[in-house]
Amino acid sequence: MALAAPALPKKPPAPALIEKLRARFGERLSTAAAMREQHGRDESYHQPFAPDAVVFVQSTEEVQEVVKLCAAEKVPIIPFGTGTSLEGHVAALQGGVCLDLSQMNRILRVSPEDLDVTVEAGVTRKQLNEHLRDTGLFFPIDPGANASLGGMTATRASGTNAVRYGTMRENVLALTVVLADGRVIRTARRARKSAAGYDLTRIFVGSEGTLGVITEVTLRLYGIPEAISAAVCPFPTIEDAVNTVIETIQSGIPVARIELLDEVQMQAINRYSKFDYKVAPTLFFEFHGTPRGVEEQVGQVKAIAAEHGAHDFVWASTQEERARLWQARHDAYYAALALKPGSKGWATDVCVPISRLAECISETKKDLAESFVPAPLVGHVGDGNFHLSFLIDPTKPEEIAEAARLNERLVHRAIAMDGTCTGEHGVGWGKIDFLLAEHGEAVSVMRQIKKALDPDNIMNPGKIVRM
Amino acid sequence: MALAAPALPKKPPAPALIEKLRARFGERLSTAAAMREQHGRDESYHQPFAPDAVVFVQSTEEVQEVVKLCAAEKVPIIPFGTGTSLEGHVAALQGGVCLDLSQMNRILRVSPEDLDVTVEAGVTRKQLNEHLRDTGLFFPIDPGANASLGGMTATRASGTNAVRYGTMRENVLALTVVLADGRVIRTARRARKSAAGYDLTRIFVGSEGTLGVITEVTLRLYGIPEAISAAVCPFPTIEDAVNTVIETIQSGIPVARIELLDEVQMQAINRYSKFDYKVAPTLFFEFHGTPRGVEEQVGQVKAIAAEHGAHDFVWASTQEERARLWQARHDAYYAALALKPGSKGWATDVCVPISRLAECISETKKDLAESFVPAPLVGHVGDGNFHLSFLIDPTKPEEIAEAARLNERLVHRAIAMDGTCTGEHGVGWGKIDFLLAEHGEAVSVMRQIKKALDPDNIMNPGKIVRM
Repeated sequence: MALAAPALPKKPPAPALIEKLRARFGERLSTAAAMREQHGRDESYHQPFAPDAVVFVQSTEEVQEVVKLCAAEKVPIIPFGTGTSLEGHVAALQGGVCLDLSQMNRILRVSPEDLDVTVEAGVTRKQLNEHLRDTGLFFPIDPGANASLGGMTATRASGTNAVRYGTMRENVLALTVVLADGRVIRTARRARKSAAGYDLTRIFVGSEGTLGVITEVTLRLYGIPEAISAAVCPFPTIEDAVNTVIETIQSGIPVARIELLDEVQMQAINRYSKFDYKVAPTLFFEFHGTPRGVEEQVGQVKAIAAEHGAHDFVWASTQEERARLWQARHDAYYAALALKPGSKGWATDVCVPISRLAECISETKKDLAESFVPAPLVGHVGDGNFHLSFLIDPTKPEEIAEAARLNERLVHRAIAMDGTCTGEHGVGWGKIDFLLAEHGEAVSVMRQIKKALDPDNIMNPGKIVRM
Repeated sequence: MALAAPALPKKPPAPALIEKLRARFGERLSTAAAMREQHGRDESYHQPFAPDAVVFVQSTEEVQEVVKLCAAEKVPIIPFGTGTSLEGHVAALQGGVCLDLSQMNRILRVSPEDLDVTVEAGVTRKQLNEHLRDTGLFFPIDPGANASLGGMTATRASGTNAVRYGTMRENVLALTVVLADGRVIRTARRARKSAAGYDLTRIFVGSEGTLGVITEVTLRLYGIPEAISAAVCPFPTIEDAVNTVIETIQSGIPVARIELLDEVQMQAINRYSKFDYKVAPTLFFEFHGTPRGVEEQVGQVKAIAAEHGAHDFVWASTQEERARLWQARHDAYYAALALKPGSKGWATDVCVPISRLAECISETKKDLAESFVPAPLVGHVGDGNFHLSFLIDPTKPEEIAEAARLNERLVHRAIAMDGTCTGEHGVGWGKIDFLLAEHGEAVSVMRQIKKALDPDNIMNPGKIVRM
């Protein structure tokens, strides 16, 4: 069993619609059980819901065709990138047609002189960065998973170096979107700034497929820094680590990454990724800049860390060492699972103002100390954002209930500190009930916008807002 | 005469509504002709339209009261900050009630530890920075005018140092908004990032009062840089200056300000602000950082400028010299007016991808060379954004027609280069006809959003989208 989704009426497509899609898309339309099941499940521990059919689209025009066919019958449409979301975003709660965008993987234009790029929605972040390798440019947003850029846009993804480069919110310049009635719009032009009307781009960034299907994304790029330096540093207590982060941010030091891993997570990483780091609350750092700039940042951060009892910086100086370090950080979730063989992970995240971060983490750690469900803690703490992975045995309802209880306490704690119920994982259906606690009356405005753009509620229904 | 607004049906308030407002607000409700006229005019050369009444509100609750009274009678509501907009944003095209927010000028909370602040909408940027003086923090967005922060939010303002710190889009964390039906919402919490639902904050940033009245603004703050350095440097040609900008941006040098002034504007500034700069295309620079960081940036930029034939950096090293320099830049518009005594200025702006900036400026300068209307050129060129001020004699229709022709050519040139019809001035009604050229079908999405949130079209009607 898993966390159960609320019951919603099914809206399966009529056989005639499936036949139309098959006639048009041939083998790119699948109704095979295995294919459907794979597309109804993400990397979360939420109950999966298979769509009734999966279409592998290859162009904006094809998306438009599918949307028009589904819209005519009021059949739900669920966009699918790589399936790496964490709150049930791709679950076909009411059935319907899954639009798999992975074959829309062309890089349409790179403009090194403008530091931007336009890609189809199915291009993944690693594919993009490999393509950019010879240009001296890179796209920094890195949620860990090799997610599609369309999916990252739709979920307003961020990750380890958002503290320096921002999230998808700051790095998407323009989108091509197919709306619920089949119209195609481009949300903005390529100018770095504009005051020309409503910010349509940012309405769709984070809309999780509920307002339209994102088919093309124009992104900001950055020059690969002249100098990059990374280090790992253990702290006497988690408070010392968090206070180091807070002072670093408050001092305006432009760290590229500043990641917290608690002692539970460090033990897991040592085992899983074959490191022998000290088992203690630890910060992973990365510094970007000119050689002198990096040297200066390192000096400043070392001084702050020393004031909090930390001196043992272990440096990853080669590109290979850095890659291994960040791979270990990205594998934190799998490392955590290996702590409790046979367990499944329920990942959650919150984000609070940085002044409340130490308190929020301390109270959360107290909860965890008193619980029988282990949950390693990691965080993009420079943003005030941290994660828990509850390690639960899927056959034990009491573990699921306990994880749900801890999650609820975490979310309400973050909201009470003027924080958010999710810093980067998104709402999907897993956090839909927390949205009202966070936003109150503003949820009704979200509902008005949803209704205006998708009056029949066919775009990924049951996510973000219930209609 | 001035550029004429399209005729729209008047919706004046019934005498009974005015009496209700007078009973409630006493002397804070004015129907005096001078007061109404002042509130129907901004700093542009567009035709002013006086509202039927002006209410000086002092709280979100009072805004709510006025909105509810007006909504009941479907009477237009026009928010007013300092009246420094440039595209007729405050014109009461259909009459109605002007909400003057200048008395909502309390700074509600400063959190130095979170680098953020919450202010009422009527607080001006200079008031905020004076208040922050002892905290070591500042708010960087600087459109020149001492505008209200509510107005700057509503118009998505930016200005000289957006190239380093972003625009209002990047620097507003949350808003309190009174909606067209009187509901009050807070758009977000204070966490630095969130994936919790639609980005309501950015729907209202740049909405120009057409979706609701912004009453409180939570903003990001920054530490005052340890070192600041500013310089003025003339170039042999405008292409040399622009190419220096392009290479600086492409190299990722984090300049805080990089402003272009053409030779016409430099002559105006010398006369008006009593400088004796060389009359040539010129860049104004400002560098922020640590002392070593600034030194490094300066070295990089000097090398790039030298490759384009510029060597004569004149440094403003004291705070007073810098203040005088940037005041001169901010007075560019008034300096321009003084070039042609008795003239009025029609200010316009566009923004293009930086790779097209040199071409866009060169073609525009060619247009100007062939025209009888003088128009100094200045620009926040690091963003690809530049401005013209057409100097026209208000008694001569042929000059107005010529300015309109040049403006239209400029805007279409920018759009053809994948740029925008306005980088920072906004749409108001002055650029409403260009929105369709820029956005096409997407304008209908803006209209759907407007209709969803303001079905009776009472919030600043006739701006951004026509209903």
